Amino acid sequence: MSLTVGIVGGGQLARMMIAPAVELGVRVRVLAEEAGMSAELAASAVGDYRDLDTVLAFARDVDVVTFDHEHVPQEVLRALVAEGIAVHPGPDALQFAQDKLRMRARLAELGMPQPEWAGVSDATGLQEFVDAHGGRAVVKTPRGGYDGKGVRVVESAAEAEDWLSALEPEGLLLVEELVDFTRELAQQIVRRPSGQSVAYPVVETVQRGGVCAEVIAPAPHTGTRLPAVAAQIGTAIAEGLGVTGMLAVELFETSDERLLVNELAMRPHNSGHWSQDGAVTSQFEQHVRAVLDLPLGDATPRQPWSVMVNILGGPASDTLESRFPAALAAHPAVKVHTYGKAPRPGRKVGHVNAVGDELDAVAYEARAAADFFAD
Amino acid sequence: MSLTVGIVGGGQLARMMIAPAVELGVRVRVLAEEAGMSAELAASAVGDYRDLDTVLAFARDVDVVTFDHEHVPQEVLRALVAEGIAVHPGPDALQFAQDKLRMRARLAELGMPQPEWAGVSDATGLQEFVDAHGGRAVVKTPRGGYDGKGVRVVESAAEAEDWLSALEPEGLLLVEELVDFTRELAQQIVRRPSGQSVAYPVVETVQRGGVCAEVIAPAPHTGTRLPAVAAQIGTAIAEGLGVTGMLAVELFETSDERLLVNELAMRPHNSGHWSQDGAVTSQFEQHVRAVLDLPLGDATPRQPWSVMVNILGGPASDTLESRFPAALAAHPAVKVHTYGKAPRPGRKVGHVNAVGDELDAVAYEARAAADFFAD
Repeated sequence: MSLTVGIVGGGQLARMMIAPAVELGVRVRVLAEEAGMSAELAASAVGDYRDLDTVLAFARDVDVVTFDHEHVPQEVLRALVAEGIAVHPGPDALQFAQDKLRMRARLAELGMPQPEWAGVSDATGLQEFVDAHGGRAVVKTPRGGYDGKGVRVVESAAEAEDWLSALEPEGLLLVEELVDFTRELAQQIVRRPSGQSVAYPVVETVQRGGVCAEVIAPAPHTGTRLPAVAAQIGTAIAEGLGVTGMLAVELFETSDERLLVNELAMRPHNSGHWSQDGAVTSQFEQHVRAVLDLPLGDATPRQPWSVMVNILGGPASDTLESRFPAALAAHPAVKVHTYGKAPRPGRKVGHVNAVGDELDAVAYEARAAADFFAD
Repeated sequence: MSLTVGIVGGGQLARMMIAPAVELGVRVRVLAEEAGMSAELAASAVGDYRDLDTVLAFARDVDVVTFDHEHVPQEVLRALVAEGIAVHPGPDALQFAQDKLRMRARLAELGMPQPEWAGVSDATGLQEFVDAHGGRAVVKTPRGGYDGKGVRVVESAAEAEDWLSALEPEGLLLVEELVDFTRELAQQIVRRPSGQSVAYPVVETVQRGGVCAEVIAPAPHTGTRLPAVAAQIGTAIAEGLGVTGMLAVELFETSDERLLVNELAMRPHNSGHWSQDGAVTSQFEQHVRAVLDLPLGDATPRQPWSVMVNILGGPASDTLESRFPAALAAHPAVKVHTYGKAPRPGRKVGHVNAVGDELDAVAYEARAAADFFAD
């Protein structure tokens, strides 16, 4: 009898678990939101992940339930656990990925370095925070935001008036200092239920318009101290929050050489796509191993440098596949990954990985290959 | 609209095309012989590949038909082509993989180095060949043999009496000299319908009991001449036989430093499994690209050495999966591939790949990891 991983959510993260699972010999079953999604090949059910009966029926045929996203409600997660179903990451960990205020409070308890922050319930509180932090601040809705959604830089409380007026009683917005960062980094950790954890090298992530555009692995110009500090932060968070599976910790590197925790993701993450072709064990294989509580793989790079460039939007006039001949002919050594999604402005529809000895050449290769899929 | 590859046959070679196809963004559809086979995840139909209607119905929904094996009858292949369906490799090429006498005759026309051979119809002819070649020879049934089946070393014609008496009128057995080889090698070539071809490095294959046990890539102790000669032979055969997709040429290296062609396979091949983790582009990705007539990928090794060790038989007492915890814990850097097949004595149920800088260490790693899956 094969081991079977059940993934809730049919997006590209679920899709990218299929290949390493098939190779190792692990079955993948997906509960997709609708037909024709990225992970369609492994979709065994289509339904609403907020509906307990739907998720329970799906979960009964698998050895462990894991996720393509962090949106499954706590009550559904806890009902699965109550039924004796293995759920990784579990609800106790996922609550911190689902609610950014809870995350900030818990990271503070753990002594993790983070931007100054507060929960605010009204314009007065928000304005006080803005005034106390140089006249600007970042306001976030604690739930539901990603890729720049639910995040706004404001100079006055009036600029968040719509969010404030929509707050439920007792509701709070998260407000954070606008960090003077020199660049953004990401630290990935994988952790098994039985406790083993492995750190990936810290990487540099380049954002454009609030969306990850490019990742360089490992992060260049770090010296020896920064990678060790980043790995310590990642490991402390994985253990402190009880994360199982892949954890991504997005970090700001400040001009005064501190690392501050920006966001968390408890699943494979865009900052780790380089590992598919650049690490001995990809983040997708690691996630599958970890949620099954199998021993973790070696996370070291296969080559000195890896660069991942996202394909955002894609060609407006035709399909990604129509660009394969030119792209593959020009770049026989890059690895093109596409997600089976229709191109749409700003949408992540694929990525390109390049690896090699010289960072400049690798970055050129990845960017040039990805360019074939733009307009 | 995605590109779609249709694979006839649901074995592990079809299974191993799934991962790279999903990653690139190519759909895979499989016509499996029965339910629950290795490539089950992509199985869109179950049926008899010898039945034209079954294969035609399957082929209408795909962009190209390719194969997990070489057993689809010529009349079925030619009917597909007559219907305008792209078939790679096509019937004109596959006839040489399906009939070893035709292969020998065609390779002779191409001037390829091969063992001395003849077609024999009776005991007298066979005995004459044996007597003329040192009193021993290899007898092969021209059709249907693989992995040591349909191959027999004889010292007298009487030892092939059963095969001789089963011959149809005009039927022939293939008889070949027993080559005094020092080792066996394999040369893989991939070729697109539009003509581009790429050679993999020649590898050493270690056979036990007529079955491939281990592959070392590239073949050690070759100097510079042998790899070039092997690649020339492979390219000449791919072009001379009009092969599209992956071609494997099994070679004898003789004690007098010649290379002689042993067998051909027109599909991904056990001698190329190392490329999944050891080459920039695996043989499975190459095959998918080639049959779609997409530009071919870089076939160079990622690391100086790769060693593949087959998992033959597997544990008699329990499942392959039950060995994952011990094997993965002891060998975090090896890549374990299993095929979703029930263990059975001598059956290929998976393989292990290791890569690295030092051949001794890499070979030890692969063998030690594979040992966890034996009894």
